[in-house]
Amino acid sequence: MMKSVGYAAQNATTPLAPFSFERRDPGPNDVVVEIQYCGVCHSDLHQARKEWGNSLYPMVPGHEIVGKVTRVGGAVKKFKAGDLAGVGVMVDSCRTCPSCKAGEEQYCDQGMVGTYNARDHKGELTFGGYSNNIVVGERYVHTISPKLNPAAVAPLLCAGITTYSPLRHWKAGKGKKVGIIGLGGLGHMGLKFAHSFGAHVVQFTTSLSKKEDALRLGADEVVLSSDAAAMQKHANSMDFILDTAAAPHDLNAYLALLKRDGAMALVGLPEVPPTVITGALAFRRRSLSGSIIGGMPETQEMLDYCGEHNIVADIEMIPIQKINEAYTRMAKNDVKYRFVIDMASLQK
Amino acid sequence: MMKSVGYAAQNATTPLAPFSFERRDPGPNDVVVEIQYCGVCHSDLHQARKEWGNSLYPMVPGHEIVGKVTRVGGAVKKFKAGDLAGVGVMVDSCRTCPSCKAGEEQYCDQGMVGTYNARDHKGELTFGGYSNNIVVGERYVHTISPKLNPAAVAPLLCAGITTYSPLRHWKAGKGKKVGIIGLGGLGHMGLKFAHSFGAHVVQFTTSLSKKEDALRLGADEVVLSSDAAAMQKHANSMDFILDTAAAPHDLNAYLALLKRDGAMALVGLPEVPPTVITGALAFRRRSLSGSIIGGMPETQEMLDYCGEHNIVADIEMIPIQKINEAYTRMAKNDVKYRFVIDMASLQK
Repeated sequence: MMKSVGYAAQNATTPLAPFSFERRDPGPNDVVVEIQYCGVCHSDLHQARKEWGNSLYPMVPGHEIVGKVTRVGGAVKKFKAGDLAGVGVMVDSCRTCPSCKAGEEQYCDQGMVGTYNARDHKGELTFGGYSNNIVVGERYVHTISPKLNPAAVAPLLCAGITTYSPLRHWKAGKGKKVGIIGLGGLGHMGLKFAHSFGAHVVQFTTSLSKKEDALRLGADEVVLSSDAAAMQKHANSMDFILDTAAAPHDLNAYLALLKRDGAMALVGLPEVPPTVITGALAFRRRSLSGSIIGGMPETQEMLDYCGEHNIVADIEMIPIQKINEAYTRMAKNDVKYRFVIDMASLQK
Repeated sequence: MMKSVGYAAQNATTPLAPFSFERRDPGPNDVVVEIQYCGVCHSDLHQARKEWGNSLYPMVPGHEIVGKVTRVGGAVKKFKAGDLAGVGVMVDSCRTCPSCKAGEEQYCDQGMVGTYNARDHKGELTFGGYSNNIVVGERYVHTISPKLNPAAVAPLLCAGITTYSPLRHWKAGKGKKVGIIGLGGLGHMGLKFAHSFGAHVVQFTTSLSKKEDALRLGADEVVLSSDAAAMQKHANSMDFILDTAAAPHDLNAYLALLKRDGAMALVGLPEVPPTVITGALAFRRRSLSGSIIGGMPETQEMLDYCGEHNIVADIEMIPIQKINEAYTRMAKNDVKYRFVIDMASLQK
């Protein structure tokens, strides 16, 4: 077994604290990554505090991982020691169901194996990226362009692919009018991608204090969602809306902005099931859908695209010792737009 | 002006009763149809009783109209006196918006002009098919195959196209597993079409008393929706579900049956906005959508398809004098599967 150190939640109420544990020795298909940076996703907070009810302790959160490969198994082809590598939300899946075969492993019929707070196929608890190293099968490890700031790449592994994938799936590109709801960790990436794909992008926000930032990040227009007249100007006009907001909000106000055959996809996943006015769907044949992360091939495609187009997240770097404070600030949306842990701080 | 007679609701509470009124003289593009049969749609009852709040009186309901052309305007090309003709849910639209130009007039940006309970572009109230004749612009009149029973064709103009269109839009054909929720006027047509298109069809019902009928109409399987184990057998397996049920029901139980990228379309339009568990959409990238009737080209395509494949509705014929009794029975779902008024009874 390999020795690892990190920060863990021991239960739902105490702060994250230093934790020593072991990881499996790498098998022939495994890659060992020395973690340099790990993004802080809102779901880390939900899981650590058992807000989704399915938490397993001790929990080492973190699924936006970038680091250096230190060892590879004998059958590994894509990586060698010294390469930059990324690990996202999942570290395994059944590999045999139609979704896995299609490279859409995130929709695995058996359920993906999460990077943390999950049990792997041997029944062992998985531990995430708030730690010094990780051992992952090659299929679930991505190559990273050395041209990008690796710290700012880390959030691409969750916030990036979660927005890139639906924007691609629903063809949000040139000639399309695309809305982005919410300007947080997910939203700011959705905005960057939609702009980069050539869409006309309308950023919806609950606070105009974000207007300048939205314009800087690529919005063509910024709309205050509480301004009914401003909303009405976009009625029946949008091809696609990406909804990154997790706080409860009225979906019907946005569905009304879609043109015929337009689609809205939820990636923020509000916990309270929203109500849907069925006429808002039927009278323009609009669709309401949702999406989670992306498959392994598409995640690599996204990372390659970011390398070519110089796209990374806007981040605030913290040492691991500040993680509990970062959680408190994240719960108040006080971050532009993603905390990233400098894992070198673990040594201090 | 042309003299017309029919049955009308004078307000929300009194029974429908005989009513004399006038229709416009036909213009150069108009077709005059002597109505032979008119289907009785559940929305007729809702509108006559002001259950949707937007009723205009006096109201002559009826938007599933089949009859004989008696006169045509000088510019009319598709029809001549003596032809069979059909009129459905709409009699006009703006003709210039993108939806109208695309032949999807039902999604007209200005709103379609309903066959009854609407105002035409001159502000005149429209009167529907519970009457002896109707004057309609050629674009909104359909040709009918003389091979079919014209009485049983009438419901195709609403129940038929309302189910045909989404089944075509979401490609419910060979190699696809398709669910139909509800076995009433809409559902029985959806079942016939899905079967005819070559899909493997699962009929969902709240009462197994309909099982034999569902099998006769083309179902490959019949599932009692309250049987959780029977429902679970279809989890993650369906490509498309057509939901024709108007009574409140749990959409999430059906969303869970869709495979990755599967879609469910609502055409029954429950009045109480249903709640949607967002994870049920996101974790398989499923879509919830809806659809109303179909455009003029597709309605003609549907009627032609029915002529080629000998598809009509299962009907119970009534004289117009029994319309109030029929409403009472329809409200209890006591009809297999559509009442059709024999308009010759008006002369008695």
